[in-house]
Amino acid sequence: MAVQAASEQSTPLPGDAGVQLGPAAALSCRECGERLPLGPLFACAACFGPLEIAYDFPGGDPARLRERIEAGPDNIWRYAPLLPVPADVASKPNINPGFTKLVKADRLARELGVTGSLHIKDDSGNPTHSFKDRVVAIAVEAARAFGFTTLSCSSTGNLAGAVGAAAARAGLRSCVFIPHDLEQGKVVMAAVYGGDLVGIEGTYDDVNRFCSELIGDPIGEGWGFVNVNLRPYYAEGSKTLAYEICEQLGWELPDQLVVPIASGSQLTKIDKGLKELVALGLVEDKPYKIFGAQAEGCSPVSRAFKDGHDVVRPVRPDTIAKSLAIGNPADGPYVLDIARRTGGAVEDVTDAQIVDAIKLLARTEGVFAETAGGVTVGVTRKLIEEGRLDPSLTTVVLNTGDGLKTLDAVAPTTGPSAVIRPNLDSFREAGLAS
Amino acid sequence: MAVQAASEQSTPLPGDAGVQLGPAAALSCRECGERLPLGPLFACAACFGPLEIAYDFPGGDPARLRERIEAGPDNIWRYAPLLPVPADVASKPNINPGFTKLVKADRLARELGVTGSLHIKDDSGNPTHSFKDRVVAIAVEAARAFGFTTLSCSSTGNLAGAVGAAAARAGLRSCVFIPHDLEQGKVVMAAVYGGDLVGIEGTYDDVNRFCSELIGDPIGEGWGFVNVNLRPYYAEGSKTLAYEICEQLGWELPDQLVVPIASGSQLTKIDKGLKELVALGLVEDKPYKIFGAQAEGCSPVSRAFKDGHDVVRPVRPDTIAKSLAIGNPADGPYVLDIARRTGGAVEDVTDAQIVDAIKLLARTEGVFAETAGGVTVGVTRKLIEEGRLDPSLTTVVLNTGDGLKTLDAVAPTTGPSAVIRPNLDSFREAGLAS
Ligand SMILES: [Zn+2]
Ligand SMILES: [Zn+2]
Repeated sequence: MAVQAASEQSTPLPGDAGVQLGPAAALSCRECGERLPLGPLFACAACFGPLEIAYDFPGGDPARLRERIEAGPDNIWRYAPLLPVPADVASKPNINPGFTKLVKADRLARELGVTGSLHIKDDSGNPTHSFKDRVVAIAVEAARAFGFTTLSCSSTGNLAGAVGAAAARAGLRSCVFIPHDLEQGKVVMAAVYGGDLVGIEGTYDDVNRFCSELIGDPIGEGWGFVNVNLRPYYAEGSKTLAYEICEQLGWELPDQLVVPIASGSQLTKIDKGLKELVALGLVEDKPYKIFGAQAEGCSPVSRAFKDGHDVVRPVRPDTIAKSLAIGNPADGPYVLDIARRTGGAVEDVTDAQIVDAIKLLARTEGVFAETAGGVTVGVTRKLIEEGRLDPSLTTVVLNTGDGLKTLDAVAPTTGPSAVIRPNLDSFREAGLAS
Repeated sequence: MAVQAASEQSTPLPGDAGVQLGPAAALSCRECGERLPLGPLFACAACFGPLEIAYDFPGGDPARLRERIEAGPDNIWRYAPLLPVPADVASKPNINPGFTKLVKADRLARELGVTGSLHIKDDSGNPTHSFKDRVVAIAVEAARAFGFTTLSCSSTGNLAGAVGAAAARAGLRSCVFIPHDLEQGKVVMAAVYGGDLVGIEGTYDDVNRFCSELIGDPIGEGWGFVNVNLRPYYAEGSKTLAYEICEQLGWELPDQLVVPIASGSQLTKIDKGLKELVALGLVEDKPYKIFGAQAEGCSPVSRAFKDGHDVVRPVRPDTIAKSLAIGNPADGPYVLDIARRTGGAVEDVTDAQIVDAIKLLARTEGVFAETAGGVTVGVTRKLIEEGRLDPSLTTVVLNTGDGLKTLDAVAPTTGPSAVIRPNLDSFREAGLAS
C-alpha cells in the first residue's frame, strides 16, 4: 500500500502531546530530514516525503544490553529498548509475535550446493502465521499511545488477520476493509476475530482510495490505520527480524540476506535494524549483502535494478505471490539503493519457479512456506546458480508467511503418489514398498 | 487410533539391543507391569495391555535441573532429561516443536466470569500448527534409534502433516496412508512435504486395517508407524505439554486443566508429566483437577463418566471436531480414572457450542483455534456455568490445533459485517461508523 500525504492531517489529533514510546524521539522525514513530534502522521508537511522514527538510544555497555535482551520475553518485546513502544509493553495485552525459529537448513543447503551455513527465518510461526503480526503489534502500541480506539486497514490477505487478532487481544475495536469478492476462506480468516469486516464493491485500489477518504473525514477520528496514519510505527516492526536473526546467529551479522519485496518497507527496515545493532555495539561490524526477491509477475524493483534505474516504474501485478503483489512499491528506490550499496541484487522468479521452491523447502526442511517464501527460496537458488550469491558464506532466507494460506498455489501439482485398494498386493503393485 | 496387539512382533526387530534413549529404561505394561527392553513394541506379550515407557530419572538437586531446563533450547528438547530421547537430541535435525505460548486470557476470563487466572496453552504455534508435532518429534528419535528408515502413519488430518514435515527435516522417507476421498486441501497439506502419500480406496477403518497388515508383513520391515509400533515413544510427547504449562506458570502446578479427548492418550500423559514434576521436586505438590472435553457427536468417555461406568462403549463419530473423532478411544478407561481420582470430570458440547467457543476465543484473545480448541473452551464455559469448575483458581485450557485447518466449521456463520460501495455515505448507511 502506498504512503500518501494527507493535508487534512493538520487538524488536531488525539494524544500527540507528551507521547511516551520508549526510545522513539521524533518523526523524521526520510527525504528532507524535517523533524516532527511523535504523532499519527505519515508524510512530511514540508516535502510529502515518508516519515520514519528517529531514536534516542541509551548509551552504555553493549554486553549489559545483550544480557537484558536475552533475559526478556520470547517475543519481539525483548527488543523493547530499540522499538517505539512503552517500556512496560510486555505487560500489556498484545499478540506478542516474534522470536520465530531460525531453521538451520542443512538439507536445503546440500541441494543448493551451499557449503557455508544456510538458514530459513521462518515467520510462519507467528500468531497469525505471517510477519504482519510483528508490524501490527507495534501499531497497536502506537494506537494506544495516541488514544485511538479502532484499529483498521485495507487488506486482501495476511494483514486482515493480523489486525483482527491483535485488536481482539488488545481489546480494541477493529474495522477491516476488503474487496467484496475475496475468496471465502480469506473472508473467514479476516472475520473470525469478531471485529467489523467491510466488503467494498470495487477493486483493491478502490478500497485504498476509500480508506484515504475515511482518514480525512471526521468519521475516521480515533481510527488508527496501521499502514497509513500509523505507518511510521508499524514499519519499525520489521526491524525485529534483523535483531532476531543476529541474536539467533550468536550476535553476529549474517553475510547475505534474501528478503521479499512487496512495498519494500521490510527490506529497508531490516537494513536499518542491522545498522542499529552495529551502532549500539551489539554485533561486530562487517560487510553484509541484502538481496531483494520478487515474483516475475510483479517485479518493478527487479526490473529497475537490472536496468540500472533509480526510479521504479509501476506495473500491474499478475502472480501467484499475492502477498507481494504491489505494483507501485513505495520504498522501491530505497531498496535499490540498499541492494546496490551492500553489493546485493534484486532478482525475480516465475510462478513455476515459486511453486518448485515451495516444494523444495517443504521436502528438504519440512517448512511449508507461503508463496512469498517460494519467491525468496527460488531467488536464492537462482542467485547461487548464477554465481551471484556466495555459497561458502552464512546466508539467511526469509519465509514471511504460511503455506496453509496459499494452498491454491501448490494444489494443482501436489497429490497422492498412488491410490490403491486396501491390500498388500495392491500396495506392491504401486511400487512404493522399499 | 486403537492400540492393537500384533503377535507378529516376535520376529526379530531392527536395533532393539543396546538402544540409548536418555532416561528411558524399559517398556512397561500398563496392565500387568511386565517389563520389556526398549524396542518397537506396543502391546504386552503377556496380556496384550498397552506398553509405556519406564524411566530411570537421575536424582539430584531440583533447582539445578530447573536451571538446566531453563538454559535449554526454546522447544521440547529443553526437557530431554525427562524424555525417551538421546541426550544430544537438540543437535540432530528434527522439527523442534514446543514451548508454545501460554496465553494469559484475561478478556476471555472476564466473559466467562473467571476471577482467578485463565490461560490458553496454544499449540497452534507448533511447526505444522498442531500438538501432533510434539509426539511425532519423539517418534522420529525412536525411529532413528531402531534403525527405521521410513516414517509412516494413517491419518485424516493433523498427523499426516506432522509426519511429513518431521520426516523431511530428519531426512527420513515418509509414507502416509489416507482415505482416497479426503478433501483436496487436506491432501495438499499431507503431500506437500514430498514423502509418499497413498490414498486407500476405503474408509479410515480400512486404512487402519491395511496398516496393521503392513506392519506384520516383511514389506513393513524398517517402517516406523508413529502411533502403532512407535506408540509408546510417540505418546510421551504429550508430557511436554504438562512440563511447559508448569514452567510457564513459574514452576507451579495449575489448579485445573481442560484437555481434549481423542484416544485419551494426551490426557493420561499430561497427568503422568505432572506427577513426574512433583516426584522430581520441580514443582511443589498440590491437588489438581483434570477435566476431559469431548464433542457431543463423539462422546463415549463423557457418556461413561456421566453413567458412572468404568468401560467405554464405542460410538460412531458424527461431529465437526474431526481431530477428536475417535469412537473407540483406547485410553478411555484411564481417562475416566484420572478424571475421577483428581476430582475433575468429563463433559461434552454440541457442534453449535464448539463453533460459538471458537468465535469467543478468537474475539476475546485473537486466538483462532481448531475445532478441538472449540471443544475445550466450550466445555470450560459449560463447567463454569454449572459450577463444576472453580472460577477463582488457576485454570489452563488446551488449544491443540489451528483454525486455518478447520475453516469449514466456522465458514457458514462467519462473514463481512457489511458490503458497501466505496464512499462515505454508503459507509455511514451501514451503521459501522463510531
Ligand atoms: Zn520532508
Ligand atoms: Zn501386560
